[in-house]
Amino acid sequence: MNVGFIGLGNMGLPMARNLLKAGHAITVYNRTRERAESLRAEGANLAAEPAHACGGDVLITMLADDRAVNDVVYGGRLIPKLAPGTVHISMSTISVALAQELSDAHAKAGKHFISAPVFGRPDAAEAAKLAVVAAGPAGDITKCQPLFEAIGQRTFVVGNEAPKANVVKLAGNFLIASVIESLGEAYALLRKSGVEPAQFLEVMTSTLFAAPVYRTYGNLIAKEQFEPAAFKLPLGLKDVSLVLAAAGDARAPMPIASLVRDHLLAAIARNGDELDWSSLARVSAENAGLK
Amino acid sequence: MNVGFIGLGNMGLPMARNLLKAGHAITVYNRTRERAESLRAEGANLAAEPAHACGGDVLITMLADDRAVNDVVYGGRLIPKLAPGTVHISMSTISVALAQELSDAHAKAGKHFISAPVFGRPDAAEAAKLAVVAAGPAGDITKCQPLFEAIGQRTFVVGNEAPKANVVKLAGNFLIASVIESLGEAYALLRKSGVEPAQFLEVMTSTLFAAPVYRTYGNLIAKEQFEPAAFKLPLGLKDVSLVLAAAGDARAPMPIASLVRDHLLAAIARNGDELDWSSLARVSAENAGLK
Amino acid sequence: MNVGFIGLGNMGLPMARNLLKAGHAITVYNRTRERAESLRAEGANLAAEPAHACGGDVLITMLADDRAVNDVVYGGRLIPKLAPGTVHISMSTISVALAQELSDAHAKAGKHFISAPVFGRPDAAEAAKLAVVAAGPAGDITKCQPLFEAIGQRTFVVGNEAPKANVVKLAGNFLIASVIESLGEAYALLRKSGVEPAQFLEVMTSTLFAAPVYRTYGNLIAKEQFEPAAFKLPLGLKDVSLVLAAAGDARAPMPIASLVRDHLLAAIARNGDELDWSSLARVSAENAGLK
Amino acid sequence: MNVGFIGLGNMGLPMARNLLKAGHAITVYNRTRERAESLRAEGANLAAEPAHACGGDVLITMLADDRAVNDVVYGGRLIPKLAPGTVHISMSTISVALAQELSDAHAKAGKHFISAPVFGRPDAAEAAKLAVVAAGPAGDITKCQPLFEAIGQRTFVVGNEAPKANVVKLAGNFLIASVIESLGEAYALLRKSGVEPAQFLEVMTSTLFAAPVYRTYGNLIAKEQFEPAAFKLPLGLKDVSLVLAAAGDARAPMPIASLVRDHLLAAIARNGDELDWSSLARVSAENAGLK
Repeated sequence: MNVGFIGLGNMGLPMARNLLKAGHAITVYNRTRERAESLRAEGANLAAEPAHACGGDVLITMLADDRAVNDVVYGGRLIPKLAPGTVHISMSTISVALAQELSDAHAKAGKHFISAPVFGRPDAAEAAKLAVVAAGPAGDITKCQPLFEAIGQRTFVVGNEAPKANVVKLAGNFLIASVIESLGEAYALLRKSGVEPAQFLEVMTSTLFAAPVYRTYGNLIAKEQFEPAAFKLPLGLKDVSLVLAAAGDARAPMPIASLVRDHLLAAIARNGDELDWSSLARVSAENAGLK
Repeated sequence: MNVGFIGLGNMGLPMARNLLKAGHAITVYNRTRERAESLRAEGANLAAEPAHACGGDVLITMLADDRAVNDVVYGGRLIPKLAPGTVHISMSTISVALAQELSDAHAKAGKHFISAPVFGRPDAAEAAKLAVVAAGPAGDITKCQPLFEAIGQRTFVVGNEAPKANVVKLAGNFLIASVIESLGEAYALLRKSGVEPAQFLEVMTSTLFAAPVYRTYGNLIAKEQFEPAAFKLPLGLKDVSLVLAAAGDARAPMPIASLVRDHLLAAIARNGDELDWSSLARVSAENAGLK
Repeated sequence: MNVGFIGLGNMGLPMARNLLKAGHAITVYNRTRERAESLRAEGANLAAEPAHACGGDVLITMLADDRAVNDVVYGGRLIPKLAPGTVHISMSTISVALAQELSDAHAKAGKHFISAPVFGRPDAAEAAKLAVVAAGPAGDITKCQPLFEAIGQRTFVVGNEAPKANVVKLAGNFLIASVIESLGEAYALLRKSGVEPAQFLEVMTSTLFAAPVYRTYGNLIAKEQFEPAAFKLPLGLKDVSLVLAAAGDARAPMPIASLVRDHLLAAIARNGDELDWSSLARVSAENAGLK
Repeated sequence: MNVGFIGLGNMGLPMARNLLKAGHAITVYNRTRERAESLRAEGANLAAEPAHACGGDVLITMLADDRAVNDVVYGGRLIPKLAPGTVHISMSTISVALAQELSDAHAKAGKHFISAPVFGRPDAAEAAKLAVVAAGPAGDITKCQPLFEAIGQRTFVVGNEAPKANVVKLAGNFLIASVIESLGEAYALLRKSGVEPAQFLEVMTSTLFAAPVYRTYGNLIAKEQFEPAAFKLPLGLKDVSLVLAAAGDARAPMPIASLVRDHLLAAIARNGDELDWSSLARVSAENAGLK
């Protein structure tokens, strides 16, 4: 397929590369041109501005946050520039409210829009092992399926209203944040009681908790290996804030999300912006007087 | 081996049965005699009082809570009645403080004591698929290993101080409670946003969260199937209270545990004592105005 | 003085009236014209659009929220229309971030801007008993002092950077919300223990807690008198959300604010939008199974 | 009257002294004899053991916690030693459950028992300005009224079941703890936003919050004057734990109490046992990265 791709960050770059590898024709745009240049040698076309990426079968946007999406889509007046059949796939982790607004704006302009945020850290993006959560009109999703297969190992379709994929993505990130927070609290108790967290982790992940999320974060936290960051604290704060915004709009209290936000703020206030968001667990350690 | 077994509740009865099946000689005692009678046909001896179960290679106590253990051990003046070589295995889920006290009291009296609480619900106890977490003097644990193998599928040794097994058990129960609470909050958001929890659960358990604890509780909560209870709300409250007591003694704040306790209280206040503790999730649904 | 006044809501209308009574010449604007008409008989001039209120000694804006202020100030391109010496007093309860932005924008345009939010419910506005918290350049505040005296009983100057008044206002509203929440929790315990809240309230307000905030809210909650609302739940939610936004920007975790937000969401989800925000306390009662 | 007085701590000693000053005949007992000796010169009789204080018109116990009360009352087999007409006034801050148990045990033995805990710090005890909250049979309370007048400035009678006074006392302490926590959070926001807490405090205590509890704690916290301690952190932790125990028994969730407990644990874990419990506010400052 002929694919426009806007946003070559830690996630976007390997995703675009995997589309190239799968044989698709890619036109990329990135605010910082150097990152786009790196893909030219691998066969990508470079767009001088976002609008030049809007004429293919599909336009993928993979941007940092609501502000970046607003800048590109509304600042760049992108919707009217989409070709009649082009499907705009929003893969960014954005607010449910913005996804709804984009969905409405595309529909009003007679354009095609689906949401397809992904689960996975940059290493999963490189290995084309992301999980894709897609929602939107069935025909549009079917059309995009080959792209999802090129970047992910599994696609989940959660309905024909685009914003529902964003709700699922945010609820999933909330679960991950809950795991980090709960491990942090458990480890603080264990350490102050003279038990090695790694020993505890082995018990848990051999039985009820035999899941990648516990192995990955459980090990990072046990080793207090918070650098280099795969996903920095402020990004975690952004995601949890999106969860809370969705919860506020839906009138659904989520007290663990509130607690995690408060601990992320403490983590940043005390230890700066640069650590991985697994260092959320350090707040519980510090609150217990450890270190 | 020759084993005394005190406490034939939902967990103790199938555990004692599995010891019998494995060929051990069992002398059982239960406050309510009927439950003990049911094992006589299968080959168990019945003790008329707890002290009569104290003369074998091993004495196992598997009781409901600190109070029951205090009643049997101190009320029954059990420690002095243990034979010199008998190892007392405390498998009950009790406070770290009581485990420490028991450990000290046995040592002072020249008796053998280890802690070996288990993970698993009654169906796992019947299937001899419990996970045993043992701590205490290495020689005593080695001696008891055949018993652990008869009731569980795996034994984890976490040190030579008995109370450490209790810390691990409580921290593990805390993780489970955190999973229930976080699923309850996520489902409330999803339901109020028009997404089926079951759909979300499939996404999560196919990827990062592919663990029994999410499948089991995720399904129970998605189906709101809170009866019959495998583990009632007040038992959950007991366990979380033990976590908080340990956290208090260790000076390690555990805010998710505090939150879970508050929600368990609300669950009981609103919906009574009889539901499974997975109905903790219903509090989040009700707080979102659902149902 | 010659005063423009935009925003004649529950608070703005009695404030404008008190300025008239004090002898100032007032030109009013309100989106819904009827409310402005009601002041004409009392001597106010009516502005056909916001810009017509910008030419006097002072322009007061007293609007519902950030959105309304943005609409009037930026949507109406108000800043360039201010006369050179006109002081714009923003009395609305708005975000610290917007107050900062307004302060910067006025400074850049060579215009005068101060923040002066008020404490007090509509009855205090009518009685000219508001407390005014002002911040901004000293000269501008001095100039406005007669106006503050006409609407309030006391003015507090908290520095020469306008947004600091907004921080103080939000922190104050947070304290009030904390009082409501804590009374709700205490009353739930008392009621379930068979003690009348009113009896408890008398003890507390006769001693350490002899303050209007405890008398007012303590009585409303004891009587469960949540209608008619002086300040509805969604307004409380708006204010607590502003507190949390300021706390987020400042990297200062405020867990009671997080908790209050969650309980306000529950209050609205369960009991609708119309009750007074003191009905936040009902959430604690319901969580205890009361009623 | 002829009064026995057991427990001469920071509060008990000045209370006993004020009874002496008011002309009552006092027989005192204290575990550490030196503190009792100091009262002998002022006219008190010394009891060699608790039982010797049980024969007068009234026995007052003013002890540190449940354990101390249990030791004295049950360990010392005090109830049977009370003279037939002696009224036992329990003024200690103890659990509702223990108050209930004591009330039942005295009734069963045909003895007189009332609860009369007090509000006030040691300086108020010295100045005879405590607030007394009394509950129990009306006749017994009337009999004791002259004693309450000698130690306090006001007595509140909250019913004829003794434990209700304990509920009121604990709910009151909870309100104080909520004030400290909310001030700590507000100050953290203010300080990180460049506003002096003292300035904020003046605004608040001049208006809605014109109460001693805000002036006292607001000033201590603004000055970060946490030593010498009038009421140390572990005592605060004890009281909040009693609140949570009562809330648990009553099935009434109190999330601010849970939060305060967690912050008190953090305060002790980080800063030790010696600071005044107003240093609870320091946790919010530290969580915001201050100092």
